[in-house]
Amino acid sequence: MRYCNNRAEDVKIAYIGGGSRGWAWNLMSDLALEQSLSGTVYLYDIDYHAAKNNELIGNKIPKYYPEYDNFTYKATETAAEALQDADFVVLSILPGTFDEMESDVHAPEKYGIYQAVGDTVGLGGIIRGLRTLPIYEEYALLIKKYCPNAWVINYTNPMTTCVDILYKTFPEIKAVGCCHEVFGTQDVLITALEELRGITGLTRDDIKVNVIGINHFTWLTEAKYKNIDIFPVYKEFCEKYKTTGHGKEKEAENWMNRFFKGNQRVKFDLFLRYGAIAAAGDRHLAEFCPGSWYMKNPESVAEWGFSLTPVSWRKDRTKELMAQSERMASGEERFEITPSGEKGVAQMKALLGLEDLITNVNLPNRGQIPNLPLGAVVETNAVFTADSVTPVFAGEIPAPILGLTSRTVENQQLVVKAVIDKDLKPAFSAFINEVSNHLDLEDSKKLFNEMIENTKEYLGMYQF
Amino acid sequence: MRYCNNRAEDVKIAYIGGGSRGWAWNLMSDLALEQSLSGTVYLYDIDYHAAKNNELIGNKIPKYYPEYDNFTYKATETAAEALQDADFVVLSILPGTFDEMESDVHAPEKYGIYQAVGDTVGLGGIIRGLRTLPIYEEYALLIKKYCPNAWVINYTNPMTTCVDILYKTFPEIKAVGCCHEVFGTQDVLITALEELRGITGLTRDDIKVNVIGINHFTWLTEAKYKNIDIFPVYKEFCEKYKTTGHGKEKEAENWMNRFFKGNQRVKFDLFLRYGAIAAAGDRHLAEFCPGSWYMKNPESVAEWGFSLTPVSWRKDRTKELMAQSERMASGEERFEITPSGEKGVAQMKALLGLEDLITNVNLPNRGQIPNLPLGAVVETNAVFTADSVTPVFAGEIPAPILGLTSRTVENQQLVVKAVIDKDLKPAFSAFINEVSNHLDLEDSKKLFNEMIENTKEYLGMYQF
Amino acid sequence: MRYCNNRAEDVKIAYIGGGSRGWAWNLMSDLALEQSLSGTVYLYDIDYHAAKNNELIGNKIPKYYPEYDNFTYKATETAAEALQDADFVVLSILPGTFDEMESDVHAPEKYGIYQAVGDTVGLGGIIRGLRTLPIYEEYALLIKKYCPNAWVINYTNPMTTCVDILYKTFPEIKAVGCCHEVFGTQDVLITALEELRGITGLTRDDIKVNVIGINHFTWLTEAKYKNIDIFPVYKEFCEKYKTTGHGKEKEAENWMNRFFKGNQRVKFDLFLRYGAIAAAGDRHLAEFCPGSWYMKNPESVAEWGFSLTPVSWRKDRTKELMAQSERMASGEERFEITPSGEKGVAQMKALLGLEDLITNVNLPNRGQIPNLPLGAVVETNAVFTADSVTPVFAGEIPAPILGLTSRTVENQQLVVKAVIDKDLKPAFSAFINEVSNHLDLEDSKKLFNEMIENTKEYLGMYQF
Amino acid sequence: MRYCNNRAEDVKIAYIGGGSRGWAWNLMSDLALEQSLSGTVYLYDIDYHAAKNNELIGNKIPKYYPEYDNFTYKATETAAEALQDADFVVLSILPGTFDEMESDVHAPEKYGIYQAVGDTVGLGGIIRGLRTLPIYEEYALLIKKYCPNAWVINYTNPMTTCVDILYKTFPEIKAVGCCHEVFGTQDVLITALEELRGITGLTRDDIKVNVIGINHFTWLTEAKYKNIDIFPVYKEFCEKYKTTGHGKEKEAENWMNRFFKGNQRVKFDLFLRYGAIAAAGDRHLAEFCPGSWYMKNPESVAEWGFSLTPVSWRKDRTKELMAQSERMASGEERFEITPSGEKGVAQMKALLGLEDLITNVNLPNRGQIPNLPLGAVVETNAVFTADSVTPVFAGEIPAPILGLTSRTVENQQLVVKAVIDKDLKPAFSAFINEVSNHLDLEDSKKLFNEMIENTKEYLGMYQF
Repeated sequence: MRYCNNRAEDVKIAYIGGGSRGWAWNLMSDLALEQSLSGTVYLYDIDYHAAKNNELIGNKIPKYYPEYDNFTYKATETAAEALQDADFVVLSILPGTFDEMESDVHAPEKYGIYQAVGDTVGLGGIIRGLRTLPIYEEYALLIKKYCPNAWVINYTNPMTTCVDILYKTFPEIKAVGCCHEVFGTQDVLITALEELRGITGLTRDDIKVNVIGINHFTWLTEAKYKNIDIFPVYKEFCEKYKTTGHGKEKEAENWMNRFFKGNQRVKFDLFLRYGAIAAAGDRHLAEFCPGSWYMKNPESVAEWGFSLTPVSWRKDRTKELMAQSERMASGEERFEITPSGEKGVAQMKALLGLEDLITNVNLPNRGQIPNLPLGAVVETNAVFTADSVTPVFAGEIPAPILGLTSRTVENQQLVVKAVIDKDLKPAFSAFINEVSNHLDLEDSKKLFNEMIENTKEYLGMYQF
Repeated sequence: MRYCNNRAEDVKIAYIGGGSRGWAWNLMSDLALEQSLSGTVYLYDIDYHAAKNNELIGNKIPKYYPEYDNFTYKATETAAEALQDADFVVLSILPGTFDEMESDVHAPEKYGIYQAVGDTVGLGGIIRGLRTLPIYEEYALLIKKYCPNAWVINYTNPMTTCVDILYKTFPEIKAVGCCHEVFGTQDVLITALEELRGITGLTRDDIKVNVIGINHFTWLTEAKYKNIDIFPVYKEFCEKYKTTGHGKEKEAENWMNRFFKGNQRVKFDLFLRYGAIAAAGDRHLAEFCPGSWYMKNPESVAEWGFSLTPVSWRKDRTKELMAQSERMASGEERFEITPSGEKGVAQMKALLGLEDLITNVNLPNRGQIPNLPLGAVVETNAVFTADSVTPVFAGEIPAPILGLTSRTVENQQLVVKAVIDKDLKPAFSAFINEVSNHLDLEDSKKLFNEMIENTKEYLGMYQF
Repeated sequence: MRYCNNRAEDVKIAYIGGGSRGWAWNLMSDLALEQSLSGTVYLYDIDYHAAKNNELIGNKIPKYYPEYDNFTYKATETAAEALQDADFVVLSILPGTFDEMESDVHAPEKYGIYQAVGDTVGLGGIIRGLRTLPIYEEYALLIKKYCPNAWVINYTNPMTTCVDILYKTFPEIKAVGCCHEVFGTQDVLITALEELRGITGLTRDDIKVNVIGINHFTWLTEAKYKNIDIFPVYKEFCEKYKTTGHGKEKEAENWMNRFFKGNQRVKFDLFLRYGAIAAAGDRHLAEFCPGSWYMKNPESVAEWGFSLTPVSWRKDRTKELMAQSERMASGEERFEITPSGEKGVAQMKALLGLEDLITNVNLPNRGQIPNLPLGAVVETNAVFTADSVTPVFAGEIPAPILGLTSRTVENQQLVVKAVIDKDLKPAFSAFINEVSNHLDLEDSKKLFNEMIENTKEYLGMYQF
Repeated sequence: MRYCNNRAEDVKIAYIGGGSRGWAWNLMSDLALEQSLSGTVYLYDIDYHAAKNNELIGNKIPKYYPEYDNFTYKATETAAEALQDADFVVLSILPGTFDEMESDVHAPEKYGIYQAVGDTVGLGGIIRGLRTLPIYEEYALLIKKYCPNAWVINYTNPMTTCVDILYKTFPEIKAVGCCHEVFGTQDVLITALEELRGITGLTRDDIKVNVIGINHFTWLTEAKYKNIDIFPVYKEFCEKYKTTGHGKEKEAENWMNRFFKGNQRVKFDLFLRYGAIAAAGDRHLAEFCPGSWYMKNPESVAEWGFSLTPVSWRKDRTKELMAQSERMASGEERFEITPSGEKGVAQMKALLGLEDLITNVNLPNRGQIPNLPLGAVVETNAVFTADSVTPVFAGEIPAPILGLTSRTVENQQLVVKAVIDKDLKPAFSAFINEVSNHLDLEDSKKLFNEMIENTKEYLGMYQF
């Protein structure tokens, strides 16, 4: 990497999971649009063909958009090749297949436990963690070996424990976990300001927020637009829409969002109860609350205005994307460049010293949230500048939210412990302590065993 | 108070709730047996007649036992009179009547929520706290006014929040909360040593333990007899009795224990799962765990070998004790002196500088348990010596237990906040976060309102 | 205040000490140059004439510079008038007169204790604190009364304890302490990069630093320009100039700097010893070290290449500035607008939500420096955004510097305690614990009494 | 080891430095007097002859005192032999010889720096630490290898850093550092109670104290006898004797104390200044204060009523003791059994579960002193019980003492860092930050180099 006229050239990015569709294509768009960077993206994926397709797609960009010729793409056959001397590493993988995810999400349903996403916390999140984190231990060691000074940006879920195990395995790692859920909440605040105060033309960056919590159970304890405190506005908004919800129709238009929709009723309910702005999608938020609140059964989910995303939908969606990938790789279909709204490329630019950035990110707690344990991975704002990310002091988790939050934090730490010790016992302790788990000890044991069995191909490293 | 030949004379003890039966009689016995102290116990109770009876009973002791003439008893008509210049204050009250307790314990049953005791945590514990703590705020202020240097020993439940509000209201107060549950667990360990190792003749003081946790969800993380680590012995014991339980018959003989019995199966189950010795009765322990574990319904409670103590039993029992009180006050029945096994009098002796004592006690966390919040009231060992109680460093709550513990701690802090702010909202936040509450938000609200309504006579100070 | 097209209009700034020369004129320049703000500056000073002069000077700006007509100036006869509903409060006062400062700085000389500045720490800093902080207590209360939501920017020394007492007196205050010393160090790093690496054209904002410490004993533990780690460059620079120093001549040209000069030898020596970049002027840094190191006597000060600023110089300088003030007020001399390099106006702009800013600032420690006490005022980077300043996590003070730092922190806390309790005893404890004080207890007492006597007109509130 | 009728038999004690005179003989006396223990003491010393003498002396005890036949003594040729399967390890060594100590103590004198003891802190303490701690690293590893479950009792100075390095090297070690200085202070309090209140017949155990600080700079923040607060009594005592001192004559009678004497004037002065009872001998206390306070020169030391103990005295004394050792080993002189006043044997008894003990001890800070760094070795009370030592919460170091204390703590941590890294640089950082060091940087460097040179035979492991 070198600098030339306030541009960073020859930047080397390793993309682990480089055969992915959504995330990789987002990155390609954002890199094309960021003309202060140029270089090469090395794509590694256990599905080499998928990575190769992305190489072909990425390298066609300058053909369609001659002004966007700043990055070259290259699929690699080994992770080592991709990582060697990388400036940045992007981690975005699917641990196992959608078959295992199907078990994570749907196996508990016959016991009356429903999950909207099933990849973060809850019973599915725990099992997914057991499957994912050993892979992350390996990547941490590869990064230590091949590019110890690289900045690592993680997108994989379960975000919190993935970032945690990277730091536990290679404590000097320079890793952050990125998530866009807060941005969507900023959009809701913009809508409220527009609808109730007639303020128009705002963008997310105009909404200054204090972010606090853990990934997908993140909260805003301050939100300002210039000298306007947005909290009273949002309160009005919540009161107005608490029973009907807001925004469903618009989102429903987009077929892609069919199962990601949500009309914010959970968010509004949480605000009116706790006085802080829940800053993630309703599907995620509901998973951190007792199952009886928002996900007692599919009917109550529908009433609360969000969806349980079936894994079958993900499978179908993937087939469509794979077909699209083939079409774009072959040149049959043109790759469309659109800004993704993600912050990954802006973070790279900041880390290269080109422009400071303040954004929310997942990092080990060094005191930014004083009433969560030191070392636990938490989500707050951080300052990104030349080769440096430092968390901003976020304050305390508000008292009524602390119980729900700390319980999940402690479960996450048990999962990490299970992975480090390769011992399922702490994982089961987390499983029975999950807020959504209303089973007795016997049924819990049966379900745990069943879910473990379903994903056992990926759990060979544990003592059973 | 003055010293004479290593005895403390003219000690003044104020007993608030001095008309009580069990606790007051225990104290009378223990004081009689402790010949290094002498003085007067001032008995104040909102039921003056009950206090007066205890005055009569106490003052008859020297008649039956001429060697035990060290204390005089005196009922007072005001708390101020009892507290004025007291050296010690004993707090042991019933907040409201058993009618309110009946609601605390049994109102949730029609929603399928069962409680074994209902006075500590859980839905009943929260409501009881709302009723009790405002009374404790008043006593804290009276103590500040009449006897700021007195040592205050609390026996009332909910222990944790009672002690907490004393310190929050009068931060310089010298108060401790005492509970005998750990002692019973030491007895279980003695039994295990006897049965499995043939060691006989042990007393509780031979079993050296590290106590950690919160009241009624207390744990032993070390237990030694001389150089014997008791943990492996206890593990063997738990394995042996995990399905049958241990000790039921013996306890069942004692009618008084009919509804306090427990065959330790919960205790054994928790040890085998978590590796630490749960050090409270099964009825208490079960209330800190998800309702589905040990109290799904009366049948599962029976299977786990313990009982749900009905408040009707308490009412009957009280009638019997009241009758006995009249008989003893009139001289018809003789007051029997037996050591209670409580530590209150030994604590007084230590605080008077006569003999150091190490015992477990409830105190604000100053760091004795580093992974619980500072200021939260916790239970650990402490050193009692001349005019001083200092907690002993207990270490961290073991990881798998932390989730259950911290969740309750946070609920307790919400209840204290509700009382200080005289605002029921934080109390409802605790109510829906209770580990035993599997209701949806609507039912939770209904039940909360009903329980509040049932005890509203004592809740006039809150904003509704 | 209101917004109009991304400008903030009608901003109300209260300037306490508004008759000052240097600081007030800096602010006038910076405000004129910041066209996204407009409004009124209310100037309050115990010397009303001086404030009035500044009103006249400020209001002449649009005459000379018609493009800079954004601010109006108004002298007030009371502080209340200036503070009423202010959006910002600037505090920049001289506590007492230069006669008292003369005692602070020079009285210790006859005991062989020399001070380069004497306004921050050391014997002079302690006495100055005793004189200044009671005034700050009053201002904190006035701010609470007249403009509790204003942002308060302090420039007065002793910076640390001034900010501390503001928070101790009115805990909800929104106050920051600003100091430019770090900026000067960024300039040194620019010079090093230019001289040793040939990199030209850099500005301070290009040098990304992690700031940590206490005011005037501030350190950089990271310094980056793009992907260049500046530490090795600076090490080379320090080695090269450790005996000769660097930059004296250039500065000496400027008569104003005659007594502020410094050839960085102290800074270089500290870096080579401790491995962190001391980020304040040598005159300040030397005062935090044992007197024997850099200020044994005037000769050793000269050898180390810096100056002991005599208060007589300050008196002379003030006379000149007063004359200049009269000339500018009368229109005889034109007020020159030049950017001051201070960050105060940029901070205001950020706090108004117009542009985020990351800069170093003095704030109570909420964990940004984990190995200094919570609550102590420390200097680190912070994020300034709409109505919000949050410290950035700075890490730990490096081990070999911690001893010197924590000792001063503890002395500062003793001074604050002395002021709050109006008791000179803790101040004397600080006095004898000062790193520069090599006197025996008797001489310390004599000197303390003498210095107190010299400033006693301002110490009427203390018990002697 | 085994138990028999509440006695512990076959206890194995390893005494490292087992050829010592004072400490070993003290232990022999105390063991003989403690009839609830029996077993063998293995004596290892680099001077085998000295250890052998002690074997002979110890084994003669039953001859003179048939009732004291509980322990056997055995000199070993290797440390391993002594340590193998030990129940207890006593560490009490002289690092290097008195020649090196002569340099530690007296080399600084020609620069005007005086030291009363020179083995704890100060310039001598630092150099002694560099010499001692590498030996302790080796012993920590030997203990890990040969007796990982043994309890280790350290008597060697510098106490704090010796205990620290044991824990840093083998974190699971069960080690405590014991010091008798507090006991002497309890004697002073007894004297005050007797003289001013007429209370007679007290023993140390009657004086209940809260101990806080670091070894040899330890303080009492509470002291009670029954319900009497001793602080006002001690204040009266200090006022009475602040100029004359107290107790010199009596101590001077004892030739052994000629150079250990002290008339408490330093202790009284510190109390009157700081309001806490300094609980170590004046010779030690003075070393933690600026040199100008109590040790400006030999005259001021004399005026303050204590002594600078010359190492030549130690040499002479050792010769006498060696001669006595020979006489006792040969049977020419009888070994006299007298209780030493040390707590080591009582600690062993408590650790064996025979009788609980509360006493002050040096342990890593786990929160017992919240305003000193976690992990730093501090001195507070602790509870000794079966196989367990847990510190008692001591509270915060009082504000005016914190500056002196934390500065030393930080120096001690630098010395430990120097030893772990085998790098003299941090040691020099400590050297120039020492409170007694008034030299400029150049002289400091010269003196440091000279002192290092004088002890270089023992410093071969460091990079120079």
